[in-house]
Amino acid sequence: MRVFLPRLRHYSTSTRFRLPPTIHEVLQTTPVGQPVSLTAWVKSIRKQKRIAFGVLSDGSSAAGLQAVFHDDLRERVNEISNGTSLHVTGKIVESLGAGQSRELHVDDVQIIGACDPELYPIQKKAMNAEYLRDYTHLRARTDAIAAMARLRGRLMQGMNQYFADQSFTYTHTPVLTSGDAEGGGEAFRLAPISQDPTLPERDREFFSHPAYLTVSHQLHLEALCSALNRVYTLSPCFRAERGVTRRHLAEFWMLEAEWGVPPVPDPHKQTAALCDFVEGLVRGVVGDSALLGSEDMDVLWRHRENDSVSVADREKRRDALVDAVTREAPWPHMTYSDAIRQLLQANRDWEFPVRWGNALQSEHEKWLCEELVGGPVFVTDYPANLKPFYMRANLPVEGESELTMGCFDLLVPHVGELAGGSVREERLELLKAAMASKGMDADGEQYAWYCALREFGGAPHVGFGMGFERLVGWVGGVDNVRECIPMPRWAGRMLM
Amino acid sequence: MRVFLPRLRHYSTSTRFRLPPTIHEVLQTTPVGQPVSLTAWVKSIRKQKRIAFGVLSDGSSAAGLQAVFHDDLRERVNEISNGTSLHVTGKIVESLGAGQSRELHVDDVQIIGACDPELYPIQKKAMNAEYLRDYTHLRARTDAIAAMARLRGRLMQGMNQYFADQSFTYTHTPVLTSGDAEGGGEAFRLAPISQDPTLPERDREFFSHPAYLTVSHQLHLEALCSALNRVYTLSPCFRAERGVTRRHLAEFWMLEAEWGVPPVPDPHKQTAALCDFVEGLVRGVVGDSALLGSEDMDVLWRHRENDSVSVADREKRRDALVDAVTREAPWPHMTYSDAIRQLLQANRDWEFPVRWGNALQSEHEKWLCEELVGGPVFVTDYPANLKPFYMRANLPVEGESELTMGCFDLLVPHVGELAGGSVREERLELLKAAMASKGMDADGEQYAWYCALREFGGAPHVGFGMGFERLVGWVGGVDNVRECIPMPRWAGRMLM
Repeated sequence: MRVFLPRLRHYSTSTRFRLPPTIHEVLQTTPVGQPVSLTAWVKSIRKQKRIAFGVLSDGSSAAGLQAVFHDDLRERVNEISNGTSLHVTGKIVESLGAGQSRELHVDDVQIIGACDPELYPIQKKAMNAEYLRDYTHLRARTDAIAAMARLRGRLMQGMNQYFADQSFTYTHTPVLTSGDAEGGGEAFRLAPISQDPTLPERDREFFSHPAYLTVSHQLHLEALCSALNRVYTLSPCFRAERGVTRRHLAEFWMLEAEWGVPPVPDPHKQTAALCDFVEGLVRGVVGDSALLGSEDMDVLWRHRENDSVSVADREKRRDALVDAVTREAPWPHMTYSDAIRQLLQANRDWEFPVRWGNALQSEHEKWLCEELVGGPVFVTDYPANLKPFYMRANLPVEGESELTMGCFDLLVPHVGELAGGSVREERLELLKAAMASKGMDADGEQYAWYCALREFGGAPHVGFGMGFERLVGWVGGVDNVRECIPMPRWAGRMLM
Repeated sequence: MRVFLPRLRHYSTSTRFRLPPTIHEVLQTTPVGQPVSLTAWVKSIRKQKRIAFGVLSDGSSAAGLQAVFHDDLRERVNEISNGTSLHVTGKIVESLGAGQSRELHVDDVQIIGACDPELYPIQKKAMNAEYLRDYTHLRARTDAIAAMARLRGRLMQGMNQYFADQSFTYTHTPVLTSGDAEGGGEAFRLAPISQDPTLPERDREFFSHPAYLTVSHQLHLEALCSALNRVYTLSPCFRAERGVTRRHLAEFWMLEAEWGVPPVPDPHKQTAALCDFVEGLVRGVVGDSALLGSEDMDVLWRHRENDSVSVADREKRRDALVDAVTREAPWPHMTYSDAIRQLLQANRDWEFPVRWGNALQSEHEKWLCEELVGGPVFVTDYPANLKPFYMRANLPVEGESELTMGCFDLLVPHVGELAGGSVREERLELLKAAMASKGMDADGEQYAWYCALREFGGAPHVGFGMGFERLVGWVGGVDNVRECIPMPRWAGRMLM
């Protein structure tokens, strides 16, 4: 029985509560002449004698909205500068100026957030990426970072759609893991809760044993794959890499997927189908004309963050990107062995020696995709010694004595490795042998559960990981991953 | 100029590469009589003299697919047990048995992953939640955990849709932060890279200063909100809570959103609109008939994880859930002061004293939503001393001398606090005063950037956070949050 509640207030709730229209929505749907009210901040303002022109942003679009303030608002306009937040009411009118078809005729304006123009770090003059990294908390107010943030959202939406269409379940695997990523020192470790050496480990550690931040969700995803069959996640990963490059962050987001596949006698076919899936994903998401034709793409590609690249070269790169994701012809596949042959034939003065069994270095990857292929390329079947224990070996090939793995790296121009994946070793004895050969303890606490997945109905499956910031960088033409994530972290540097 | 590549192989890629149909797709679309092939694992198998009936799962649906194996497959059927992975080919036929309309007549079967029935930890007999927590890596093979995982995916999809419809940008704020959550000891800390006390801090720490795992993304989201205006994230959060309850995890996922709002003279209206938004979200996502009517909901609500609740009571709870998210009448709002009055009038023997200014304890929250209201209720306007520094105070109310905040907690039956949010203090002086009153240093490195957001066009905004596992628990009728996430972590316990 419910109690009578004289003091409860009921507010009206439509089944679908709606926030007021954004600038983007107003520009798309509000008819000329109709009154609107908007909350926004000022990207720029130009004050003339009897009139002022402001560009307002609420983050809903790259261009923002031109607002015209007439003389009667002069007093308040005097207080407006770049960065000021406003609540404006007015009417949408046809624009007489160039650059936009419609603008806002402001009838009233209220200043809801002042901004001292002398102190505001986001100036109209060009600010380079390094300067803005010192203002991580404010830099989303620049066109390029805002466009990047929206591009991230759009890419996530597209990826979620692709995976839903293919009957995948979006899952969450843990950030905190008991695995130290094979002890390579790349995994961050949680601080113990006590430093007292007289206590046993289980009392010094919050979780009774050491905990690390995951470097990859793959192994845990495989556990879910053994039950749910098609799983993916887009989750943060962490690497305590001391090296500082334009391609590495200490905290980054990875798209990772694992799925079961029918058994085929030739593992090469599994690898080829895995590459096709990844190609379908990237083309499906990036080749979307709404994304390719978006204002945000224009902002990002027009942005001259890297002045060493000429405008003409940037245009070429963008054309090559559009071509890669929209053309009919599929992306080429080449084996590692073929890649080595091509690199040897190139007759270049490589810094790192090209030799079968050596890892491909950045200079080699760059040449393969940028010069040899001129676009994305899948390099497959790497030597066993270069790859981790969980990959499935290929069958021996006639005339080749070395063991290769059913795996791929996807190389794209100006980024290098965008994604990597493999057929996973599902046979327990072979998995254990691979672990032994790498000096790993298959029966230790860290990997026993992973081996158990093979013991209880472990079946053929494949998977891959894709660096989300690298995807953003490739699609948006952003050279440094620090500008591909809102708040970057790298060795020695963490603001906010 | 592109080089001629005689050794490159091109595989055919349709613009939309498709994986083979899942069991769910086959049951939905494959006509009777049509041959199909499937990869799946065996949930159960019943062997009779000349025939065997298996239930196959590939994680795509709760029910799975009944497969009929005839006598000619006897030899291979002998090797099949619960947990075995199979590749089957056969035909879809009308089912004569009860419980399903269609089944698979198996023509051929290949065992692709054996499973020793003596050792397989996932037995047919009922296994309690605690037993299964020792088999985290395998427990997604149980109906309830698999249904929970799919429910999570579906809730995420729904939330992404709701936020996209309201023009929000999905953003990623960092897990690693420089803030220690006001030093309450709740934040996990990264281990320093050196323990050498003779080194300066900047050489002992990977990031030059201590790093913590975030307890909430709110403050960082506010930075993005000041530029992009409407932002949300679904991200992992971490709390080093020693207390072990059925509602707390050390690693959990939070939905958090922040958005700018037009200024209104009365902050109560902002709070009310904020509640309306949250109600619209929860009702929009959970009230979806495809979700409410899903097989997974049936599995979860039929599941007797908590034997202390009778079947009839579980039915009542489920009906109440459906009613709450589908009925016309909006959820009631009541102020904290009203809640206190009601609790005092209840004439109960409370364990924790009910007094204006005290926090509402679990027993109070439970009574308010389960007994007083009989459904979700927003409790608003808590006393200032109970709430964090970033909340915006209400205007003084006549006849009430104490300061209250423009904030809400959403209480739902059997979960307690599902979400909490507030109007944020956008006025720099008042924010700094609030920080000072809590002994916080507004100019220190940890919060200077947060204050700076107010300095440069900081404008009225609101936001909230919702515990994703609690949402899953409420919607799925799962009593313990450890069964609301695939791989739970809590004090003293972290498997995998």
